[in-house]
Parts: sequence; structure tokens; C-alpha cells
Amino acid sequence: MKDKSMLMIPGPTPVPESVLRALGTHPIGHRSGEFSQIFARVTQGLKWLHQTKNDVLILASSGTGAMEAGMINFLSPGDRVLVGSNGKFGERWAEVALAYGLDVQEVKSPWGTALNPDDFKAALEADTAKTIKAVVITHSETSTGVLNDLEAINAQVKAHGALIIVDAVTSLGAVSVPVDAWGLDVVGSGSQKGYMMPPGLGFVSVSAQAWEAYKTAKLPKFYLDLGKYRKDAGKNTTPFTPPVNLFFALDAALEMMQAEGLDNIFARHARLTQATRAAIKALNLALYAPDDAASPAITAVAPAGIDAEKIRSIMKKRFDIALAGGQDHLKGQVFRIGHLGFVCDRDILAAIAGLEASLRELGYEAFAPGAGVAAAAKAISA
Amino acid sequence: MKDKSMLMIPGPTPVPESVLRALGTHPIGHRSGEFSQIFARVTQGLKWLHQTKNDVLILASSGTGAMEAGMINFLSPGDRVLVGSNGKFGERWAEVALAYGLDVQEVKSPWGTALNPDDFKAALEADTAKTIKAVVITHSETSTGVLNDLEAINAQVKAHGALIIVDAVTSLGAVSVPVDAWGLDVVGSGSQKGYMMPPGLGFVSVSAQAWEAYKTAKLPKFYLDLGKYRKDAGKNTTPFTPPVNLFFALDAALEMMQAEGLDNIFARHARLTQATRAAIKALNLALYAPDDAASPAITAVAPAGIDAEKIRSIMKKRFDIALAGGQDHLKGQVFRIGHLGFVCDRDILAAIAGLEASLRELGYEAFAPGAGVAAAAKAISA
Repeated sequence: MKDKSMLMIPGPTPVPESVLRALGTHPIGHRSGEFSQIFARVTQGLKWLHQTKNDVLILASSGTGAMEAGMINFLSPGDRVLVGSNGKFGERWAEVALAYGLDVQEVKSPWGTALNPDDFKAALEADTAKTIKAVVITHSETSTGVLNDLEAINAQVKAHGALIIVDAVTSLGAVSVPVDAWGLDVVGSGSQKGYMMPPGLGFVSVSAQAWEAYKTAKLPKFYLDLGKYRKDAGKNTTPFTPPVNLFFALDAALEMMQAEGLDNIFARHARLTQATRAAIKALNLALYAPDDAASPAITAVAPAGIDAEKIRSIMKKRFDIALAGGQDHLKGQVFRIGHLGFVCDRDILAAIAGLEASLRELGYEAFAPGAGVAAAAKAISA
Repeated sequence: MKDKSMLMIPGPTPVPESVLRALGTHPIGHRSGEFSQIFARVTQGLKWLHQTKNDVLILASSGTGAMEAGMINFLSPGDRVLVGSNGKFGERWAEVALAYGLDVQEVKSPWGTALNPDDFKAALEADTAKTIKAVVITHSETSTGVLNDLEAINAQVKAHGALIIVDAVTSLGAVSVPVDAWGLDVVGSGSQKGYMMPPGLGFVSVSAQAWEAYKTAKLPKFYLDLGKYRKDAGKNTTPFTPPVNLFFALDAALEMMQAEGLDNIFARHARLTQATRAAIKALNLALYAPDDAASPAITAVAPAGIDAEKIRSIMKKRFDIALAGGQDHLKGQVFRIGHLGFVCDRDILAAIAGLEASLRELGYEAFAPGAGVAAAAKAISA
């Protein structure tokens, strides 16, 4: 039905009406005092969200652009980097590193499982010459719904002294990423995720230790040169024309997030995650990620024996619910339910109810009618 | 007055209500059939605007990001490039080239004057060994309001055989940039200019000869790797999450532009330019760029004896008209009137009327009251 689409994908996520209204207002000049006021306000909001006093810089880019900036600004050709890889995004950061001629060592774990902090411990302890300059970690692996143990891995990186560069694209705003408390050097994210706004802005937080590395880093850059953004951020402006309308939307979204409060935001995402997982179990379908490494942003379901694409198709046609499919070799094998950003309990109940009906339509009846919804309802009332 | 701001700067330009409404609609999934339809439609519209059958690729970036992509995808470290420089943007492309370790030779002309095609002829003819791989030209120099003679310079580049890389950021959509007829290899632009939409999208058109160069080009890239965009454009999608709301806006803006027609768009910009320049002359103020090299996007005015910043301040406070200031060493010496994108005759008359009143307020009376408006009115009725 026209205009009835409900996004349950890991970005773009649903966007509140007030954020859309802000987005659709007439642009202003980006070299105006009015824009500088917005710039200053959203920068403060970003620091709040990142729980940091570090710089948080804003690029016109996707999350990948932000992560690439987060890597190339602090490294030189041939530098050794350790990249955690247990899904599509971990693989992507290794590709970025290779594209820039870095010496890449991957720490791997199968898709659907979490990275093992002990593997990082071993690799980092073996590096007695301290040739590893940075460790790149995907916090929430969007392709599999796995949340890696960033705190434990980071402890190993701190013990070694390398920079830690974190892909927090689908974790920031869904689960606590305490940048200062954990000492996270570089954290990249994108606007169409926990930020509750459309895609088009990338964010990078940068620690003092990372800025030290910047001074001698020699990979070439211009548009993604974070030093230019830091310099102009000091004057509440940007080195290149910013997407002013997306700044309006960011301003409105951060205001909503601050009104809700960090603890409430994280509790809501935890509740939505638990409700979704309880429902999937009650429907006797397999969760692709284990309970102890469940992403707060997305739940991947492996409906063995049923083509995941058929489930997505019925969900879309009958109920106007957009689910994400599997990426790469997981296409057809999993579907993914996004519960990130502007999502409430009602959305999960509706999605699970629609999923039950879709499964029945496909002849899958290995669950008592209503069992999924009942399990979700119980989880959110717990 | 709140909500009364009138943008007469060279971007962001005014945006039509229908484009803003499209911008502010709920996002959709970027891996959906619905998005692919929009992608296909805007790609066709972009080819129409560029007058080309070449690929026109869409990035989430500013115009600088698009230009950087247009340079680094076709060159290798140490490659020799000729960069035309007669303003802030020409200087910027030389900086980009230097940041990537290219061997840069600048062809200069003073700010406020056009590049001399003979200078390119001399430099290119001297390169009998054909070591110059590319020539980078700013078509409309936004900092000065000078339109460089792209057709004549391009003829020299064609005779040599190097690639031509064009910054058409403030010329595309304002004056004809016939990519195929002239054989322009790479053309970069940005959404907040002739496109009549907010900033956030960059565009790059790429010729077959440029794609040949891409095959052996070795500068590092990932987010700005145009090969990835070309590959996915063949499937009507993007390699990284696109700013879907900006695509909605682009779709609406291109529809409006196609309804107006290229010839009408260019005639309107020529008329607005002539009206602005006639008015400035009637006010006995100095035009910073000569008549035979006047940008169709922006007119820079050097009000000798009056602080240009004071004029801008009164225009803003009394009339809610935003003019651009001078960049770098021109700050205070010039102001710039944007007449690019969604601008009509009435806007020019209003701006000139406001300018007359502002000048009087500053004690400048070297013109008959109404003379500027009368000259503009005559020019638009011619």
C-alpha cells in the first residue's frame, strides 16, 4: 500500500516526522552564523552520544567513507594493521587497508560467531617489536547480527599500545560505546543507523593518541583528510560544503535522543533485541548469532528449509514490512530484522505477527499460532 | 525576518518547494526495486544534463569529493598534470594533485582574469614526449565569477591527447557543457549548484578514454573508487549506502529541469547574468570579471572604497538577502551575487533594489536612484 512501508532493515532506519520536517526546510548558507550555531550544537550532541571529549568530525559520506577516513589518516604505506574479520564489514576494512598498501593481518572467526579476544591477545603479544600500528574492529557486524566483544579486544590493544579503530556503524546509538572510558582512538559511524536520520553523513571520533599518529601519517588524502575537518570544526565550520539539510535533520534527531537519554535508548534496544530473539525461538527458527553475542541493531534468522527471500517477499507484499536479506553467500539462507534507531515495542510485535502469517502462507507450521507474538510480548513486559 | 532568507550565494542555492517535499519524505531501502527505479531515472536525467552517453556516477560527497575522485581514479603516483589556476578552486585542484604525489605544473592567470588558451597550447606543445597525463580545468571559477574558455582549452588538450578533467561545479546546469560534442573526459559537479537541490551529492561523468586510463591508474582509493560505482550502476545500485533522500530530491529537480529544457535553462542564466552586470555598471561599481569571461552562475563586485562585508551585512539584516563574501585575500574587497539554479528575473530585481538601498545607507550615492533596477529591467526585457 502506498506510503505504508515499514523499514525493518539495518539502515536506512525509520525516521521521525520531526526529523523529516527539519530535513525538508529551505537550506541556509553554510558560511553563515546561523549554520555555525547548528554546527556547534550538533558537535556537542555527537560528543554526548560518543561519551567523549574527543573531536567528533562530520563528513558528507556513507559509513564506509567515515571508516576509510578513520583508517587512512593515521597510517603510512606499509604499516602493519590487524583487522578483525567475521562478516562482510570486517572483510571490507581489510579491503580498504589493502587498497592503500597496508600490511594486513586478519584475525578471523566464522560468519555468525564472535571474534575471539584471545586471538587478538596472541597476535598482539607476539608483536614484541611493536610493528602493529592499528587494530580495526567491527563492533556490531551488520551482515550477521553478531556483536563483537569490543571491551575485551580493546583491553588487549591497550596492553600493546596500537591504535584501535572501531566500526561502530550499527552499534553507536544502540548500545553503549563509551569512547573515553574505554579509550577508543577512532570510532566511525553513519547517520542512517542509530541516529534515526537518513543516510548521507559519516562521523569519526578521534583521540589525542590518534592525532599524534596523524602528524606522521603519510597515506594520501584530501577530501577525507580529517586534519582539515578538525581545523575548521574549531571555527564551527567545515572545509567543504556540508549537506546543510542533513545537518538540520541531525540537529533534530540529536535533540530527540537527548530527550530520551542514553540509558533509555540502550535499554530500548536491548528490549527490542530480546523480544525479537524470544519470538524467533518460539517460532522454532534458528538465530544466526548466539545469545551472548547478539547485536542490539539487527537479528539474523536462518530459516533452514525455507527460502529466506520468499519470506522477505511475502512480508513486503502482504504487510509492507521491509526486511533485509542475506549478504554474499548468505543470500537466501538468512533474513535480517532491523531493530535499530526509531523503533518501538509495537513495531516488533507487528513485525513478528506479520512474520507468523508469512511463515504459515509458506506452509511452515512448526509453531503454535501466536507463539511468536506471545514470546515477544512477554519479553517486552519483563 | 524568520523564514524569509533569500539565498543569492553560489550554493547552496534556493531549492524549489517540490524538491524540498521530495527530500523530506520517508526513506526507503537502498537495495529495493523502488530505489533502483529512481536510480535508473536520475542516471538518465544526469546524462541528459551532461549531454552525454558517458557514465555519470553519483557519490555521497561535496563537489570537492567528486573532483578528487575525478582526478585520482585516472592517475598514478608521479604522473605529470597541468592544472589551470586563476582562483580558489583552481588552486584547490593543484593541492589535491600535490596531496597525491602528482607532478603538478600550474598554468596561471591572475584572479579575476580568464585562463589563456595559448598558455595551454604552449605547455602542451612543449610536451613532445607526451608525459602530461591530464589537464585539470575549472570551468566557472566560483571565487571570482570568471568563466574560463573550456572549449578553446579543450581543443589544445585534444590535440595533445591528455585527459581533460573539468570542474563544472558552478557551470553545469547554468551554461552548456556538451560533454560528448566536446569530448570532455571527466566532469565533476555538485548538487547544491545548478541542480537546484541541497548539498550532499557529487557527480562525475567519465569517458571511454578515461576508463582506459583507470585500468592502469595506481593512486590508492576505496570510497572514491569510481570503478565500484560504475560496476554497481550497471545494476542500478550503489557500492555504498546512498543518501536516498537526496536521490528523491535529485529526481524531483531533474524532472523540473527537463520540463524547462536545456536551452531555456541556459537562456535564463545568461539573462540573469546580463541583468546583474548591467545593474552593477549602472551603479558605477566595478565588476571583478570582464564581460567576455562572465560566469553564468555568479557575479563578483569590487566596490572600491566600500567594505564589501558592510554591504553584505546590511543586505542580510535589512532585506534577508544572503550574498557571498570574497574568499581568501578578496575578503572585504568583493561581494558575490549568486544567480544560479532556482533563480528568476524577479529575484535579480529584488536583489538589485536591495543593493541600491544598502549602498545609499552606507553613503554611496554615485548613481541615480533606481538606475540599477532600471538597467536590470531593461536587460531582462531585451
